[in-house]
Amino acid sequence: MVIVNFKTFSEATGRRAVELAKKAEKVNDETHVSVGVAPQFADITAVAEAVKIPVFAQHIDPIKLGNCTGHVLAESVKEAGATGTLINHSERQLKLSDIDEVIKITREVGLVSLVCANNPRISAAVATLKPDILAIEPPELIGTGIPVSKAKPEVVTDTIKLVRKVNPKVTILCGAGISHGEDVSVALKLGTQGVLVASGIVKAKDPYTILCEFAQATKIKRV
Amino acid sequence: MVIVNFKTFSEATGRRAVELAKKAEKVNDETHVSVGVAPQFADITAVAEAVKIPVFAQHIDPIKLGNCTGHVLAESVKEAGATGTLINHSERQLKLSDIDEVIKITREVGLVSLVCANNPRISAAVATLKPDILAIEPPELIGTGIPVSKAKPEVVTDTIKLVRKVNPKVTILCGAGISHGEDVSVALKLGTQGVLVASGIVKAKDPYTILCEFAQATKIKRV
Amino acid sequence: MVIVNFKTFSEATGRRAVELAKKAEKVNDETHVSVGVAPQFADITAVAEAVKIPVFAQHIDPIKLGNCTGHVLAESVKEAGATGTLINHSERQLKLSDIDEVIKITREVGLVSLVCANNPRISAAVATLKPDILAIEPPELIGTGIPVSKAKPEVVTDTIKLVRKVNPKVTILCGAGISHGEDVSVALKLGTQGVLVASGIVKAKDPYTILCEFAQATKIKRV
Amino acid sequence: MVIVNFKTFSEATGRRAVELAKKAEKVNDETHVSVGVAPQFADITAVAEAVKIPVFAQHIDPIKLGNCTGHVLAESVKEAGATGTLINHSERQLKLSDIDEVIKITREVGLVSLVCANNPRISAAVATLKPDILAIEPPELIGTGIPVSKAKPEVVTDTIKLVRKVNPKVTILCGAGISHGEDVSVALKLGTQGVLVASGIVKAKDPYTILCEFAQATKIKRV
Repeated sequence: MVIVNFKTFSEATGRRAVELAKKAEKVNDETHVSVGVAPQFADITAVAEAVKIPVFAQHIDPIKLGNCTGHVLAESVKEAGATGTLINHSERQLKLSDIDEVIKITREVGLVSLVCANNPRISAAVATLKPDILAIEPPELIGTGIPVSKAKPEVVTDTIKLVRKVNPKVTILCGAGISHGEDVSVALKLGTQGVLVASGIVKAKDPYTILCEFAQATKIKRV
Repeated sequence: MVIVNFKTFSEATGRRAVELAKKAEKVNDETHVSVGVAPQFADITAVAEAVKIPVFAQHIDPIKLGNCTGHVLAESVKEAGATGTLINHSERQLKLSDIDEVIKITREVGLVSLVCANNPRISAAVATLKPDILAIEPPELIGTGIPVSKAKPEVVTDTIKLVRKVNPKVTILCGAGISHGEDVSVALKLGTQGVLVASGIVKAKDPYTILCEFAQATKIKRV
Repeated sequence: MVIVNFKTFSEATGRRAVELAKKAEKVNDETHVSVGVAPQFADITAVAEAVKIPVFAQHIDPIKLGNCTGHVLAESVKEAGATGTLINHSERQLKLSDIDEVIKITREVGLVSLVCANNPRISAAVATLKPDILAIEPPELIGTGIPVSKAKPEVVTDTIKLVRKVNPKVTILCGAGISHGEDVSVALKLGTQGVLVASGIVKAKDPYTILCEFAQATKIKRV
Repeated sequence: MVIVNFKTFSEATGRRAVELAKKAEKVNDETHVSVGVAPQFADITAVAEAVKIPVFAQHIDPIKLGNCTGHVLAESVKEAGATGTLINHSERQLKLSDIDEVIKITREVGLVSLVCANNPRISAAVATLKPDILAIEPPELIGTGIPVSKAKPEVVTDTIKLVRKVNPKVTILCGAGISHGEDVSVALKLGTQGVLVASGIVKAKDPYTILCEFAQATKIKRV
């Protein structure tokens, strides 16, 4: 599984978000590796209309219908076409009780929950809340091009070890600095089920080719 | 000027946001009173495609392009079709320096800025930052159906007095509890240029009729 | 163990904080039940000078020495005489990564960490971070006088069950609505090692007598 | 007027906060220039007992007595001996409505309000809220040793110009990078009534001597 976080990059805003999502879908269809995208809120509708792959919101708020001007309602991103949501990304961290509440909301509304965590301890804490997917991303490597899977493999293996003690089922991804197919295959060898990637794809000269490389790398592992 | 804040009401989410925006457009076209709408982020694209009236985001973040997962980028809501944005709504308040930064961003990006304020003092502080529009909304009346223009006229008149001392140009709206045409005409008589309304329209049995009533009320004043 | 949270009650501010702490110390000394107090930041010095029982800060920030104006530094409350700190009280909740960071800081600085949690799931998440003490407090019962131990015993027992799966050692307290000795003895019978209490003591007509009652209740259990 | 912000520097925590405050008092008494100090919350009691000069809290919260665990109550810092408080320091920024509320609270409780602002526009906004003292501090110069008064004199003069339009009375200080007596005298020549300083004094090898230099510099101006 490869999930591409569009963040607020200009290369992945508006019309360009739709184009990038189509490339991701092409890789998904050609390689039969699951590729998902996480566009900005205002782009969910257009992206979800354009592609059939999983679309994640980048965040939702722990709110109910009603008087919550300026907040992100689960029902809204769902109706716009999102199938899941990132939660607690290191650039949009939540209070612990809000993570719990948001995971609960995703279950009620029918969204896939992907919770991010900064380190192995936090990953284990998150895992006790039973999200669908957990992504370990050391913030100090985000956007650096230095892949967590190679630079800090112990962060990944410690995460898997601690998480599996408390939750045998959650899907575990890793992210931060993932730039090459090899970073992905190393991530899978360490025991993850995929990667969460942003600038490595979004800011690549040729996102389609790199994404293909990522997808192929996940297949090698399975052999 | 009448601006309808869709908040996170189910009656104004997704498909129903588009329907409500079309009713607002109908009133705008029939009465020649400017009616704007403020849908949720994920609904901006569909609403802006469906109608030609002003579309406001409910909030934007004081961020630049890049590593800001889960935040609301001015460029994104603009490309999605927003022509303006609410700022500092009492349900989504900002730090003072962020209000200043967001107003600056709206100017750079080309969005109309509508800053909300809780009381006359805060209105004057906001006015020094030179937004395009300022809306005074006493939070204790929001959603009550008790109109600020009738229940607390002095809040409106004090706001106008204090604001005009520091900013002769900003458009001044009032909001909170506005439910009937008469509330609107009183608001205009007090010296405002229009109203910001939410549940009074969104949760009305017949939003089109009430909105017509609002629009007519603004015209009476002008005579 | 009984810990009295002084919150920002006038009955426990300044001079009155010291008086209340002395009563707590008297109960501690007379009953040989461990009684701790959690005064406001500005009262830590005077309280810690006046009594020898454990003194908790009500919160510390996840910061280091330096440019953090207006924040609460672990080293500062420690030097003022605090022996521990509350963390993530439902009235002062933290981001998950900040809870992790603050627990780490308490270990480095030598403070006892007491982390609060809102429900059994959050308690388990907190327990994976290995604080010294964990307190389960359903926020809806705080300040009501309806004791969690009697009104929601399953919240307490579920917490103990989930927490013990991931952390066999952490001391578990419960709180919210604890007003009578019997509430305390029920709490201990449910499997906790003590209570976190606020208005039940601070706003009692005779805090000393009630606190004695609490302390006696903990002893009955042990028999 | 010279106000020394102790921030969370180790050189100004606990026992060392008291020592530094005594040096400030010595300068105050010897030069008859008003010198104030802003220690951490937990140090207010000891500092206020040790010296007679003005003692500022570094922050207070917009709260009332009661259920506000971990927050900073105006009444508490007042009873501990504070005579005023910093508000909205760039390291502890507040929502606009909270600045308004906190200023109101300082008036009710009897504390001097010193509100910080990042730029001239924000200074004018703050000035409309009528604090006792306003300090302009460009955050990019804080802690650099590059004095605002010399590096960005236009920030100071623009602030004075914009502030005086809306508030003729508020005392205006400037801060950020103030390290030498000359920086202070330039600040006064630009039209301020004093300086807010932190590392320039706290981390100086000989804070007493530098503070004397500052105080003397303010006197030269008056001549």
